[in-house]
Amino acid sequence: MSGRADLSVRALVFDVFGTVVDWRSSLIGLFAEWGARTGRAADWAAIADAWRAAYVPSMDRVRRGEVDWTILDDLHRASLDALLPGFGLGDVDEPTRREFVRFWHRLRPWPDVLTGLHRLRDKYLLGTLSNGNVGLLARLAKSASLPFDIILGGDLFRHYKPDPQTYRGACGLLNLEPAEVMLVAAHNGDLAAARAEGLATGFVPRRGEYGPHQTGDLAASAAWDVVADDFTDLAARLGA
Amino acid sequence: MSGRADLSVRALVFDVFGTVVDWRSSLIGLFAEWGARTGRAADWAAIADAWRAAYVPSMDRVRRGEVDWTILDDLHRASLDALLPGFGLGDVDEPTRREFVRFWHRLRPWPDVLTGLHRLRDKYLLGTLSNGNVGLLARLAKSASLPFDIILGGDLFRHYKPDPQTYRGACGLLNLEPAEVMLVAAHNGDLAAARAEGLATGFVPRRGEYGPHQTGDLAASAAWDVVADDFTDLAARLGA
Repeated sequence: MSGRADLSVRALVFDVFGTVVDWRSSLIGLFAEWGARTGRAADWAAIADAWRAAYVPSMDRVRRGEVDWTILDDLHRASLDALLPGFGLGDVDEPTRREFVRFWHRLRPWPDVLTGLHRLRDKYLLGTLSNGNVGLLARLAKSASLPFDIILGGDLFRHYKPDPQTYRGACGLLNLEPAEVMLVAAHNGDLAAARAEGLATGFVPRRGEYGPHQTGDLAASAAWDVVADDFTDLAARLGA
Repeated sequence: MSGRADLSVRALVFDVFGTVVDWRSSLIGLFAEWGARTGRAADWAAIADAWRAAYVPSMDRVRRGEVDWTILDDLHRASLDALLPGFGLGDVDEPTRREFVRFWHRLRPWPDVLTGLHRLRDKYLLGTLSNGNVGLLARLAKSASLPFDIILGGDLFRHYKPDPQTYRGACGLLNLEPAEVMLVAAHNGDLAAARAEGLATGFVPRRGEYGPHQTGDLAASAAWDVVADDFTDLAARLGA
């Protein structure tokens, strides 16, 4: 990392799904617990993957203006309703569907996250910068005891990443210049969009995010300001 | 508090200046430290009072549309610039003026606040609902180790309390119905505006907020859902 960037960064904002939390293992575990409790069985990993696969297309429909602004909780609900019948769960009732949507409020962090964030928080203002709605993100952060100072999510900007309004909007709400804000993400595309708006960039690979056969984002695809092995390594590289 | 409200409240949002933090003593102390460090003397209490007295009129100019939307940090700066000459401090330089504005990021909580919030956070989602900008509020909360789950401030709504957009907007961002959200404030007017939007209401008096000669908000002026002596009493009354 350049000395200049090291001096100027005041806040770190984190992508959440995949970067901070292991959505796939968390969802599989929560579905399996529900199955054990209710005597239902299904391919929970396939359901988790199908649900997440609907994520980008559902945001793209909002981005293209095909549907009005919709928060992620509601996109999750619509994609859940669409996929359940294909997994033999079309009969699942309304309260259970709501419970499933709230699984995203209870995702677990990767093992290095709490240690890394607690080191980083002494030196930097820490925030989320996620496509989640802030209600979802605040509950997730509380559930996992994530020490974020501020929760920033798509509904504050009525845009989804990688729309530039999200990165610029985050800097505006933090009252900082883009060069004073670093996006930390496991996704090269997110970092490229942040860099285009002038933010500093930090990459942390999450090679198991999409399960054992993941093919994308296995390594940094550009010379990001920091490339770290995990959040504790990120803290070390940032001198925190 | 009625059993119904007790059951339905899921989140507490707190007014900050006066309710959570003792802005007056904090400002006086920070100015006095600066004076001791720099060899300058002035009536720090009078400066703190004059600065705060400019607060409501400065927001009213935004509310009436006489000036464009302006965050509280910038309103503070404008009112500071206007008052310094009258206190013999017209020569204070630019970096010092910025430091003075950041005094509001370092205000100290009333003595009961940390204990009360730590009890309440196990039962409720806790947020700010302040006219401060979220950048100011996040830094203040971090500086004072206030365990808020979410930071909500005027710049998210581009409105200042008591405009209804702030109370409704907070419920929207929390993904809760108004009856599920309680505003906690030391100011009866704030609570009246929140109640008009359907929020639950909690009053905590801060009889020293404006110093020894305070005349307003010495007691609850209406039958708020909860009236507590301080934040630890609030926690007890809410069963937390």
